[in-house]
Amino acid sequence: MKDKYTVAVDGFGGDEAPDVVIEGLSRALKKNTDNVKFLLFGDYGILKSKVDKYSNLAKNVEIVHAEDVVSADMKPSDAVRKCRKSSMWQAIDAVKSGVADGVISAGNTGALMAMATISLRTIPGIHRPAITTIIPNLKGYSTVLDLGANAESSSRNLVEFAVMGSAYSRVRLGVTKPVVGLLNIGSENNKGREEIREAANVLKEAGSDLGFEFKGFVEGFDIGSGTVDVIVTDGFTGNVTLKAIEGTSKFISNVLREAVLDSSILAKIGYFLMRPAIQKMKDKVDPRIYNGALLAGVNGVVVKSHGGTDALGYSVALKAVTDFIRFEINEMIKKDLEELGETENYYALVAES
Amino acid sequence: MKDKYTVAVDGFGGDEAPDVVIEGLSRALKKNTDNVKFLLFGDYGILKSKVDKYSNLAKNVEIVHAEDVVSADMKPSDAVRKCRKSSMWQAIDAVKSGVADGVISAGNTGALMAMATISLRTIPGIHRPAITTIIPNLKGYSTVLDLGANAESSSRNLVEFAVMGSAYSRVRLGVTKPVVGLLNIGSENNKGREEIREAANVLKEAGSDLGFEFKGFVEGFDIGSGTVDVIVTDGFTGNVTLKAIEGTSKFISNVLREAVLDSSILAKIGYFLMRPAIQKMKDKVDPRIYNGALLAGVNGVVVKSHGGTDALGYSVALKAVTDFIRFEINEMIKKDLEELGETENYYALVAES
Repeated sequence: MKDKYTVAVDGFGGDEAPDVVIEGLSRALKKNTDNVKFLLFGDYGILKSKVDKYSNLAKNVEIVHAEDVVSADMKPSDAVRKCRKSSMWQAIDAVKSGVADGVISAGNTGALMAMATISLRTIPGIHRPAITTIIPNLKGYSTVLDLGANAESSSRNLVEFAVMGSAYSRVRLGVTKPVVGLLNIGSENNKGREEIREAANVLKEAGSDLGFEFKGFVEGFDIGSGTVDVIVTDGFTGNVTLKAIEGTSKFISNVLREAVLDSSILAKIGYFLMRPAIQKMKDKVDPRIYNGALLAGVNGVVVKSHGGTDALGYSVALKAVTDFIRFEINEMIKKDLEELGETENYYALVAES
Repeated sequence: MKDKYTVAVDGFGGDEAPDVVIEGLSRALKKNTDNVKFLLFGDYGILKSKVDKYSNLAKNVEIVHAEDVVSADMKPSDAVRKCRKSSMWQAIDAVKSGVADGVISAGNTGALMAMATISLRTIPGIHRPAITTIIPNLKGYSTVLDLGANAESSSRNLVEFAVMGSAYSRVRLGVTKPVVGLLNIGSENNKGREEIREAANVLKEAGSDLGFEFKGFVEGFDIGSGTVDVIVTDGFTGNVTLKAIEGTSKFISNVLREAVLDSSILAKIGYFLMRPAIQKMKDKVDPRIYNGALLAGVNGVVVKSHGGTDALGYSVALKAVTDFIRFEINEMIKKDLEELGETENYYALVAES
């Protein structure tokens, strides 16, 4: 557990940067102000005039000038080559040099992933990082990874994702010993792709010494029902599935709205009376309250905020990055990796890759 | 276009078979009774006594005795080996022998897939069949495949799925020239897995002579928004995504119900008044009204009804199987395959596999 820590903040990442970033900092600093320092990267003049408007930022926020910005539509390879002076790269660099303990950006995800991996590398032993987040389910929240850092994932990757997702669940959701499931197209042992079955075998062998419990295969509907705490899948499936879930939520609320517009005046009155309940439902699935994806496996705490979030959402992601630092998530991951290293099956996977 | 046709019906497939099957037949036969004949497979005594209760079945339904039943939890390999006398196998066999023009079952999906593929083989030129269905979106319905016939799909498979999905969309939804998208994790050309990029290249080259228009890559949220008519993906991603969408619908309606229970009496009254609108929404996403998956690519029309559907849902699937027969869906597929055969890229893919 870390008592005092410094977070590097990309001041110019996100649709409404730097305003949302700065307002988010102000919100986050309403509590817990003694132990944290934020280094805010970006154009000094612009940031200074905006930061000065919030009285509670002076004490904990230090502006660090960075002249360039990574744009939202820039290709990751271009960003890495051309944007060394950007707020994003400089913020990551602060982690590399040890000035900061972690970094947050709401900017270009691909660029953040590429820069963080190139600059910080992965945790020793981790083959590939994975984008990890939480989404609501019937019982609370599930941790899901990989959401698209990789187009394909080997059995070794999947095993390591289980370790990383479990650490995320422990820190962010306070689950003591998370239950982990591997996403598959059936729950029987002989189902699905070979790499998934192979990963399951390793996780079964590693068993109870790990910081999590491995449940075996889960299916698509288990994401919504909350059968397990952590859902492990390759980056392609994770990305498509998460976007399909978001699309479905949007579709359903649209259909409901249209049905109301298309109904009798009584139904419209009903909708009006029901608004508090509908608000409760919206609160439960409000993406702001679970904002903050971890680029898990990177050797340093790197958090991606949703680019379109507001100050509330950004402050939630700031809470996430400080929690990952405080509870030393990467130490948790290293500890489980050591446990895994003692199993023959995992050793064989590592040797192959 | 086929004027007169015969459909083989597995009388003992589905959770509530044979009752739902027979009631579904009775519903379907309320219209369009002159051109169709149904061969109903299963235990003669049981079926006869139940069929006799519906006055409108005598003219169009003929019972064919089959002594055995494929159970819902049987492994496909066991079903193929042990259940040649089952209603499922016998119904498929009627298509093979030319007695029937197509077959429908609400039974064990894996067994149906295995039996149909072994007995009927695939359409000449089609490498692998795919499970194809429709799901609702903001604009109407999307056709989606593969939903799990294959754990992995090559670029050749994906190209053929585009052909098959387009034919499904034309017959079932009456789309004249369906717009087809390949599911990916980004819309740029360099995104995603190699087999997907390769399939996109072939479909782009084949272009305008096909019965559909190829739009390029689509993402998970395009399923709900209805950006395209047909969504092509591998069986793993399709299966997981569809189940995740179902899980999300369930999750949202549960959250709404809980929010109402947890709210003031006024909100509860609101819910009560809103019921007609909520019913409209439920109707739009009611799985019964789009029941009927095609085992596309099998050399014969093979339709899978949802196992848990009721008579209304079953009658919808019966309408689907008769439409696939009437509009000769497999001829549409063959025609597009011929067009494809004239492109160099496709030829190369076929030669490789």
